[in-house]
Amino acid sequence: MKLAVDAMGGDHAPKEIVLGVKKALEEFQDIEVLLYGDENKIKEWLPSHKRLTIVHTDEVIEGTDEPVRAVKRKKNSSMVLMAQAVKNGEADACISAGNTGALMTAGLFIVGRIDGIDRPALAPTLPTLDGKGFLMLDLGANVDAKPEHLAQYAIMGSIYAEKVRGIEQPRVGLLNIGTEDKKGNELTKKAFSLMKDAPVNFIGNVESRDLLEGAADVVVTDGFTGNMVLKTIEGTALSIFSLLKKTLTSSIKNKIAAGLVKNDLKELKGMLDYTEYGGAGLFGLKAPVIKAHGSSNEVALFNAMRQARDMVKNDVSNTIKEAVKGGEVHE
Amino acid sequence: MKLAVDAMGGDHAPKEIVLGVKKALEEFQDIEVLLYGDENKIKEWLPSHKRLTIVHTDEVIEGTDEPVRAVKRKKNSSMVLMAQAVKNGEADACISAGNTGALMTAGLFIVGRIDGIDRPALAPTLPTLDGKGFLMLDLGANVDAKPEHLAQYAIMGSIYAEKVRGIEQPRVGLLNIGTEDKKGNELTKKAFSLMKDAPVNFIGNVESRDLLEGAADVVVTDGFTGNMVLKTIEGTALSIFSLLKKTLTSSIKNKIAAGLVKNDLKELKGMLDYTEYGGAGLFGLKAPVIKAHGSSNEVALFNAMRQARDMVKNDVSNTIKEAVKGGEVHE
Repeated sequence: MKLAVDAMGGDHAPKEIVLGVKKALEEFQDIEVLLYGDENKIKEWLPSHKRLTIVHTDEVIEGTDEPVRAVKRKKNSSMVLMAQAVKNGEADACISAGNTGALMTAGLFIVGRIDGIDRPALAPTLPTLDGKGFLMLDLGANVDAKPEHLAQYAIMGSIYAEKVRGIEQPRVGLLNIGTEDKKGNELTKKAFSLMKDAPVNFIGNVESRDLLEGAADVVVTDGFTGNMVLKTIEGTALSIFSLLKKTLTSSIKNKIAAGLVKNDLKELKGMLDYTEYGGAGLFGLKAPVIKAHGSSNEVALFNAMRQARDMVKNDVSNTIKEAVKGGEVHE
Repeated sequence: MKLAVDAMGGDHAPKEIVLGVKKALEEFQDIEVLLYGDENKIKEWLPSHKRLTIVHTDEVIEGTDEPVRAVKRKKNSSMVLMAQAVKNGEADACISAGNTGALMTAGLFIVGRIDGIDRPALAPTLPTLDGKGFLMLDLGANVDAKPEHLAQYAIMGSIYAEKVRGIEQPRVGLLNIGTEDKKGNELTKKAFSLMKDAPVNFIGNVESRDLLEGAADVVVTDGFTGNMVLKTIEGTALSIFSLLKKTLTSSIKNKIAAGLVKNDLKELKGMLDYTEYGGAGLFGLKAPVIKAHGSSNEVALFNAMRQARDMVKNDVSNTIKEAVKGGEVHE
């Protein structure tokens, strides 16, 4: 299979991106890589490889670019060329650690939606305390979601969890402000009844306070709420760890204690590290589009490539297409 | 002034409620209390006081009761009688630690809305890392909010922060998924432009990840999102502290460390304790209605009473009424 990669996206591009690609080429004998970006810079870290094709371009979409305009105007940018490769059938999936909004735009307008899916969804795998993690969608691809969109997310998420994460009968929950069936706002109440009838193992409403405890394998929500909850978890965790650090350095006694538990605390922090879990899939597109974290290092980019490979191998896009063709969601 | 109190609401009623009332009667010479509930049980903890009137009733709204039905049917419940006292002008404000939904219903249908306010908002003061705290509204009184509602919350929250919390020109922020002006869903985009024109010190969008750092003095959001974010902060904090506990008891070395930092860690946890900050005001009603935390002990109930007293003393309800009469919000 062929994977197209944007070498220029992300805080540590192109170095860490290229090193991640190198690692993936070494690890996976079944992939070929099309790598888009500044050829000279790329070659500093990976001069050549028999399964690598470097496609040179000077144009880059920056993190600060307005997404829709950038994708329209920067037609020779590494990200747009990468998406075009998928559209033209030259690649089976694509990966970028660049501007999230631009990647969603490129995914939607260049790669294109699966027939029957109204809106793509951004779907990362997030950590739980037991280390298993859960899939959450949508995290912000579509901030004004309708109930039908949520039901489609449920189907897409369930297929991914089963096919790629290997979870049998994944438990699909609707993120809500109470666990009772009739809780919520208009959107979640309507989504609840659609999800009940969808071809997934729907376990009902789940609350945000239970997410880290593994409340469900797939958590469905609208993009606004999902993005809000993700940032709240991140912010709360960061705030607590910074408080903790302050406490543990506030006296000699505490510094001694800190020395004793240092490694275990680092491990604890690692359990909540969002970069560990690879990239976020953009679900509902004709081919897998993976958003690697903006701060991706070699390992994170490698994980995102593995994820793209798993999605292609397990034919996730076609399975979604077949599932929505059944018409279970559009009533 | 006269404060009406529901003696039977909350996990530790009536004991802790009555002890909180006793403390308030001792502390504040300017209050009289009307206390609603089981007279015999109340008298176990406070036999009599010259500024106390006990109004006996056997009927109680339980935490599990369906709110609207309970308020309609349990006309002699301690909570309904308490709200009636405010409506009839026998009391200036009321406090309950009971069923939140029922109290919101009683507030809305018995105490009544201020003219010009479309929806009341549940508004607790939440902790920040620097100990100052911030007011957030709405936390769930109105799960399907319109942009005008959010603009009204901004005005109510700003008045409260200034009058009761003593903050000059309180910084009012709109909770959103990005700090840029044009971020968000339809609701927040429209609310943004209304809030820009409202008579408050509007500082623009704030993100949930910055809440604990004190991003604003007043944070405005719809009830669904507010409730979701609150539960996410609580859940994340609880999860991390439980992980931390596990880490600190996982080896002899760590137990020694835990012994050294135990008290400081307790203090850290206390900084994020939501019960410390008293009750949540139900804003937009003709008189102050305070929801004390369901797990309220004597101190929490006392704090809720102080809050009600501060709101009455500073004439918050009338100030809100005058502010919205100006018509700045309805354009």
